Amino acid sequence: MTDFIYQNTTKIIFGRTAEEIAVKEMADCKKVLLIYGSGSIKKNGLYDKLTALLKGENIPFAEFSGVTANPDISFVREGVKIARQENADFILAAGGGSVIDAAKGIAAGVYYEGDPWDFYSKKHVPQKALPIGSVLTIPAAGSESSVTSVVSNSVTKEKNSCSAACFAPKFAALNPENTYTLPPYQTACGAADMAAHSLERYFVNTPCCDLTDRLIEGALQTVIEFAPKAIAEPQNYDVRAELMWAGTIAHCNILDTGRESAKGRGGDWSSHNIEHQLSAYYGIAHGAGLSVIFPAWMKFVKNKNPRKLAQLGRRIFGTVGGDMECAEETIVRFEEFFKKIGLPTRLSELSIGDEFFGEMAEKAVAAKNNNLGVYVHLEKGDVEEIYRIAQ
Amino acid sequence: MTDFIYQNTTKIIFGRTAEEIAVKEMADCKKVLLIYGSGSIKKNGLYDKLTALLKGENIPFAEFSGVTANPDISFVREGVKIARQENADFILAAGGGSVIDAAKGIAAGVYYEGDPWDFYSKKHVPQKALPIGSVLTIPAAGSESSVTSVVSNSVTKEKNSCSAACFAPKFAALNPENTYTLPPYQTACGAADMAAHSLERYFVNTPCCDLTDRLIEGALQTVIEFAPKAIAEPQNYDVRAELMWAGTIAHCNILDTGRESAKGRGGDWSSHNIEHQLSAYYGIAHGAGLSVIFPAWMKFVKNKNPRKLAQLGRRIFGTVGGDMECAEETIVRFEEFFKKIGLPTRLSELSIGDEFFGEMAEKAVAAKNNNLGVYVHLEKGDVEEIYRIAQ
Repeated sequence: MTDFIYQNTTKIIFGRTAEEIAVKEMADCKKVLLIYGSGSIKKNGLYDKLTALLKGENIPFAEFSGVTANPDISFVREGVKIARQENADFILAAGGGSVIDAAKGIAAGVYYEGDPWDFYSKKHVPQKALPIGSVLTIPAAGSESSVTSVVSNSVTKEKNSCSAACFAPKFAALNPENTYTLPPYQTACGAADMAAHSLERYFVNTPCCDLTDRLIEGALQTVIEFAPKAIAEPQNYDVRAELMWAGTIAHCNILDTGRESAKGRGGDWSSHNIEHQLSAYYGIAHGAGLSVIFPAWMKFVKNKNPRKLAQLGRRIFGTVGGDMECAEETIVRFEEFFKKIGLPTRLSELSIGDEFFGEMAEKAVAAKNNNLGVYVHLEKGDVEEIYRIAQ
Repeated sequence: MTDFIYQNTTKIIFGRTAEEIAVKEMADCKKVLLIYGSGSIKKNGLYDKLTALLKGENIPFAEFSGVTANPDISFVREGVKIARQENADFILAAGGGSVIDAAKGIAAGVYYEGDPWDFYSKKHVPQKALPIGSVLTIPAAGSESSVTSVVSNSVTKEKNSCSAACFAPKFAALNPENTYTLPPYQTACGAADMAAHSLERYFVNTPCCDLTDRLIEGALQTVIEFAPKAIAEPQNYDVRAELMWAGTIAHCNILDTGRESAKGRGGDWSSHNIEHQLSAYYGIAHGAGLSVIFPAWMKFVKNKNPRKLAQLGRRIFGTVGGDMECAEETIVRFEEFFKKIGLPTRLSELSIGDEFFGEMAEKAVAAKNNNLGVYVHLEKGDVEEIYRIAQ
């Protein structure tokens, strides 16, 4: 087991009255900046609920909306201006990972004189941010209790992440009812993201990390069981609750404690990086990119290192046989899972050709300073091969 | 899934240099009160290491030692006096659960004008405490990152717990090397406590709490696999590390989120309560009491509610057959596990007769305000029956 420091201070407020409890956490705020996306929270009633609760507690608030999937740095820059104009002392993000990620950039941007893109281009690690609260509507990214923010730059065609302690939300309000109206495809993309967060952490060569192996397997089994159920019964509270809590657990970093890592966070993280290029170049949903890339990555690494693929299959799918046989069956099972919840498993299904494979592979490797992959180290040519396998 | 609020702010510093990192967390302290037990930390070198590190960082400190297993309230009272005399602004507990539990009582007692036993007799919930840090030497109680303290009263023959947010340690330094000298019996008692913490959380009737079921199963599998290994290879770092981290995970409350509870903490907790009476009356090790009581409790409840016993057996031991058959096999497997690590499974092995069954049963039920048991509700007569089964 590798040495580690683990701390997650976010207060998780989970259940049917999560918003009511969460609003009291902001009782002393002078001005809350409420950030949300393109308006789905207005359709499903969450906007009305939150604003009524804020008014009921006499908490002044301003609004900034329009965050899109793969949030662009231009939105963060604009949000920083508004937060400063409004003298906001709290950022409340109501939405999915994109909204919360943008909120983090804005919360730190307020205290930073330079361009907030510096956080994502590794020029500057933010040290201070306004307190952030999240009301989650899309279980997927785990941003609600993580110290990470992922933001895109449409000009440079980059999608980068930044991790900083000051990004840790003060609270995360998780009410499964807020996910009832999530369409099947978005539910599925969220599930793929959770599965990927679990899988990235699983694939390490640390000789002994069995407790976290087991915990990750448990999270994966839950996602595999409950994602199809959530699509079949979108208003089943318990089913939505399992998936929502799995999304947070899968990315709150307790699952990667003691595991080998390239830079702090335990796990491999190659597939995420390879997928980020697809999102940056084609604007596809992160989850849909992951359901294509993860099986392709597995097919590439199985010939070099089948051990953990085999262990995973034996433990969660009950596969039998030698390592290679079990590894291959594990890949088949994951492809079946993704197909079952309506996600693509080939680039062609996303109408993505091979025109940028070289360019994207170069960026994927460069984003990790030529140190991509922990379970299997990947060079640029390997990443191109993974894109080809995914065709 | 039931509604819940979960937060655990303790910084976990895990690994071979945990003490070095932890000491820096106290850099601004004016006076640290170092609390430890009967001196095993002097034998294994931890005392020398910690005091050298404190001196190296120019952090003034005083000492208070002599905490015993099942720490008595008289020790807490004495510690409060010393902490006040010394003007301590930080309590550093170096030891196992007993030392950390006593430290929590002392840390809160400093701010309380009354008798600290009030915390444990439910007369007063402490609201403020000195900051606490822990350097763990016995993985078992989970006190290193929990908000709970268990203290005994030799006069009233009581062993009670108190949970308070201010009890949450600021940091927990977990260096598996500090457990190398732990004798086999204490290693086993610790493992029984971890297993029991996991099992207590498992036994609820919540219709859907599958993610946490899976996580608990993972923790149990780790304890069952690594406890015998730790006894066989006491200086195997990875083995000690798995067991140490399992002890914290099993009791940091993430495993009981969303699960039915009698009062806040998800789970059943009958066996703990029934065992606490044994410790209070006979001064036995908590883990040894649990290895006797848990199988007896399982035998009692299996006739009323075999479902989760059966599920657990199918998932972690691969048992097959109907619910009753699987439940019975699960109990056999747990008894085998406890025996394998050298623990008793009958009261007779602890030389405990039936002289206080009635009295202890009454106290066990009274400690929970006649509301003992979540998975199966227990009356006084039921608890007596469990003591009889354990004979």
